[in-house]
Amino acid sequence: MRNIRIDIEYDGTNYFGFQRQKKGTTVQSALEETFTELCQEPITIFGAGRTDSGVHALGQVCHFKTSSGLAIERLFKGSNKLLPKDIAILSLREMPERFHARHSAKKRAYAYFVLNRPSPSALFRNFLTWAPYALDDQGMTEACEFLQGHHDFSSFAGAKSSQPRTSITVNKVKCFRGTGSLNVPFSTLGEDCITFYIEAQSFLYNMVRILMGTLLEIGQKKRPSSDMKKLLGHPDRKKAGPTAPSKGLFLVSVEYPQEFQ
Amino acid sequence: MRNIRIDIEYDGTNYFGFQRQKKGTTVQSALEETFTELCQEPITIFGAGRTDSGVHALGQVCHFKTSSGLAIERLFKGSNKLLPKDIAILSLREMPERFHARHSAKKRAYAYFVLNRPSPSALFRNFLTWAPYALDDQGMTEACEFLQGHHDFSSFAGAKSSQPRTSITVNKVKCFRGTGSLNVPFSTLGEDCITFYIEAQSFLYNMVRILMGTLLEIGQKKRPSSDMKKLLGHPDRKKAGPTAPSKGLFLVSVEYPQEFQ
Repeated sequence: MRNIRIDIEYDGTNYFGFQRQKKGTTVQSALEETFTELCQEPITIFGAGRTDSGVHALGQVCHFKTSSGLAIERLFKGSNKLLPKDIAILSLREMPERFHARHSAKKRAYAYFVLNRPSPSALFRNFLTWAPYALDDQGMTEACEFLQGHHDFSSFAGAKSSQPRTSITVNKVKCFRGTGSLNVPFSTLGEDCITFYIEAQSFLYNMVRILMGTLLEIGQKKRPSSDMKKLLGHPDRKKAGPTAPSKGLFLVSVEYPQEFQ
Repeated sequence: MRNIRIDIEYDGTNYFGFQRQKKGTTVQSALEETFTELCQEPITIFGAGRTDSGVHALGQVCHFKTSSGLAIERLFKGSNKLLPKDIAILSLREMPERFHARHSAKKRAYAYFVLNRPSPSALFRNFLTWAPYALDDQGMTEACEFLQGHHDFSSFAGAKSSQPRTSITVNKVKCFRGTGSLNVPFSTLGEDCITFYIEAQSFLYNMVRILMGTLLEIGQKKRPSSDMKKLLGHPDRKKAGPTAPSKGLFLVSVEYPQEFQ
């Protein structure tokens, strides 16, 4: 069996998230339908990260096994032709049999974008959360510093979270005005954009959106930045902020051990 | 009567262009409906540039006259609330009575974006034309140089063009790989993006799209870059390239005399 890695970009606006559901179209079901047609055998897609309804991906990674002998180039062109236009295959390549998009992943990076100006954005309306009020990015930056390292994030886990372990090591985290050197769109929104970027091996359900909801309350000075530290020490979902809207969230990239890069 | 200038951004994907039509929703009709409701009197909107169906704007400028006493801040917030989310009011301000969005305009700038890579873009699918084949940006850059200055552009006027004068002075024109220092989105597509930027007082119907269609033929080496010079000297629409798709085109900005800036 061949083991094929797919790197994809998608606009999650019109999907019920990444993962296959009983009802409604998901990114996974669209991919499975396309590759099943191309390979002429039932294909199961495994994705590195499960994104919610309305969440986007700049660099989701998936894999599937197939006995089809179709050349990579044909699979690449064929899938980009058959898939709906809001899902794009960026690259396709053959991998060693032991590569698994989800299990082999070392790190996942997410970014959340907030448009902080009086006027909304027409072009990027589905990719940003609009905050037309003053935001103290200094306070938000400070709050983020508490998140670095190993902590219990159960304050920031959505009710549907099924992960048994709630302690997570955050490898990198930052919140800043502008889009920085991140390889992300909207960079010309410049100082009107506030970016929250976070890297870890895994995340709890809704974790990034609840962290963002809490950061937005800190930005609005509804609570001090030190609250972030307290929420990690005394975990209680009710004490954290609301879940920020899904549309501002992007799965930016997935990192694998050297041998799979 | 108050004279009010509006600067707007829109995603033209779902509109039958800017200008009011007998059938179908246009950006102008959406604006007129919104400001008529806010001002409680019939409002007529005048726009600086008429964009076609599917063409976008980063900085369209309009004006309208009203006897309503509603404060600018109320008009700004109210219109952004009432308008469909694919039209955003960036700013609203009171102008001298003699300001006319269309007649006072000194220059209009348009940009056309081509995504030149093997994979399509899911996020920006409505904002770029995808060219998954080799493009000689050197040849395209050379061809553009012929456009600078005063020329007869009738080779590049769509059949529906009603403008009596076909001679136009192009103030600035360039075609380059990347998005340069232009204040435009997608800058992170970097070298995968080819940008065509052009500034003039006015344009013929479909002119930018036909220029782009011709540039794409030059980029594919279907014709030499010197063809651009020939098309200006011996105007004939049939000799120029096809009309490039509307979705890659943006009205970037409109320039007015100092007194109105």
